[in-house]
Amino acid sequence: MTATDNGRLGLLLDIDGVLYVEKQPIDGAREALERLRGMSAGLRLLTNTTSRSRREVFEQLQAMGFEVSLQEVLTPAAMAVRHCRERGHGSVALLVGEKLREDLSELEPWSPGGERQPDAVILGDLGEGFTPAVLNDAFRLIMDGAELIALQHNRYWRRGDGLALDVGAYAAALEYATGHEALVVGKPAGEFFAAALSDLGVEHAVMVGDDVEADVGGAMDAGLPGILVRTGKFRHDALTARVTPTAIVDSIVDVPELLERLPPI
Amino acid sequence: MTATDNGRLGLLLDIDGVLYVEKQPIDGAREALERLRGMSAGLRLLTNTTSRSRREVFEQLQAMGFEVSLQEVLTPAAMAVRHCRERGHGSVALLVGEKLREDLSELEPWSPGGERQPDAVILGDLGEGFTPAVLNDAFRLIMDGAELIALQHNRYWRRGDGLALDVGAYAAALEYATGHEALVVGKPAGEFFAAALSDLGVEHAVMVGDDVEADVGGAMDAGLPGILVRTGKFRHDALTARVTPTAIVDSIVDVPELLERLPPI
Repeated sequence: MTATDNGRLGLLLDIDGVLYVEKQPIDGAREALERLRGMSAGLRLLTNTTSRSRREVFEQLQAMGFEVSLQEVLTPAAMAVRHCRERGHGSVALLVGEKLREDLSELEPWSPGGERQPDAVILGDLGEGFTPAVLNDAFRLIMDGAELIALQHNRYWRRGDGLALDVGAYAAALEYATGHEALVVGKPAGEFFAAALSDLGVEHAVMVGDDVEADVGGAMDAGLPGILVRTGKFRHDALTARVTPTAIVDSIVDVPELLERLPPI
Repeated sequence: MTATDNGRLGLLLDIDGVLYVEKQPIDGAREALERLRGMSAGLRLLTNTTSRSRREVFEQLQAMGFEVSLQEVLTPAAMAVRHCRERGHGSVALLVGEKLREDLSELEPWSPGGERQPDAVILGDLGEGFTPAVLNDAFRLIMDGAELIALQHNRYWRRGDGLALDVGAYAAALEYATGHEALVVGKPAGEFFAAALSDLGVEHAVMVGDDVEADVGGAMDAGLPGILVRTGKFRHDALTARVTPTAIVDSIVDVPELLERLPPI
């Protein structure tokens, strides 16, 4: 008997770097995804993207020939909405790009000069919009009691013209100045993985990702096996990180066979 | 016999908040400064300012009627120059305001497109100039091996329109993204206090300041008594900080009498 025999095993997959790299599907990834769907109790695609809406992520996957549904795509924005709802937050200051606003439309957006202070500041990717004026406004709101919610906490990312500071760096500036740690809702937050399990109605799942900290480390901290793929942002030096993946494979193509061999959970 | 009897006791004073508040000299501060000069082996004024040059700080003190010399004013910029000289740094990227450049004129300023990479990035106060483009450039230089030198590491400051992020917050963003801690040359760095002692040619000194962390904590970490004044940025909640000052007085006016009562060092 193997891990998938009981049929109650969920599959959690990172998207960028696992299914495609630089907008090109990884060879065999579409077929592997189908095979994994058949082997599992269902799957969820967990992305930390803060530059595109859930719908855009879904449409891009479809355009590449991946057979997925919108419901299968989970983003940090959805987690932020859930958190604000649970906390009963009223208006929320949205420091996010234009494209992400549709994913946060359930929230009441705060604007400067509003009658009352916002209950939270949601920090996404503002790109060139991370000006001192914007950061100082956010800083003052947090000092006045607003909760800082970071959609992710990555250090940097590689864009066309080179490395650039990511959301985590700007969050670190606000955290240092205010003395308050941000609530991170994207990977590696345990709540993100828990929400995916709950969404699938399963108690166990395997996570597959190319980011040894956010994907693999996050999953393992949440008690789930974490499989690292050697595609996408994988680098050999990642293996010296604090995380020891449950397994390492060349690409998602090798995951179905690996799951057949995993002992039952 | 008291602390000042041996005549080898130096006096270290913070400036803003100790000698003046909001550009107004504190009542009796000029006379207290003169009395302290007569009681000690000499004094140095240690400021963490990153917005004005040493000469401007000196001229402002003179304009307020304080009898000081340019040589008595010590700034983080001078410490940064000393550090770069000791390390044999070649060109250095200067992320500082225009007014501070005269204090860094000994260094060879790096500019983008230069033949070789800079050996260090000096981070001062760029105000509205802390744009993502500027921060990303600094980030890449540090990732390529440049040392990050922060003129100070304060969390925030109070300016005309409210609280604003200070140099320490932007340093924290770069530190988080690069995984490298900045070298801080301003207070509370022990090197700053050591340089002041060396400049005075004394082994012992007393520090007087209104910042319980940078002034008092920094001095005490360097083995010097730290006296907190209740003027300037002093707040009662400062007394719950990790630092217990050697003494707390209402203002610099009370320091001469206090020194008369201190046991010999």
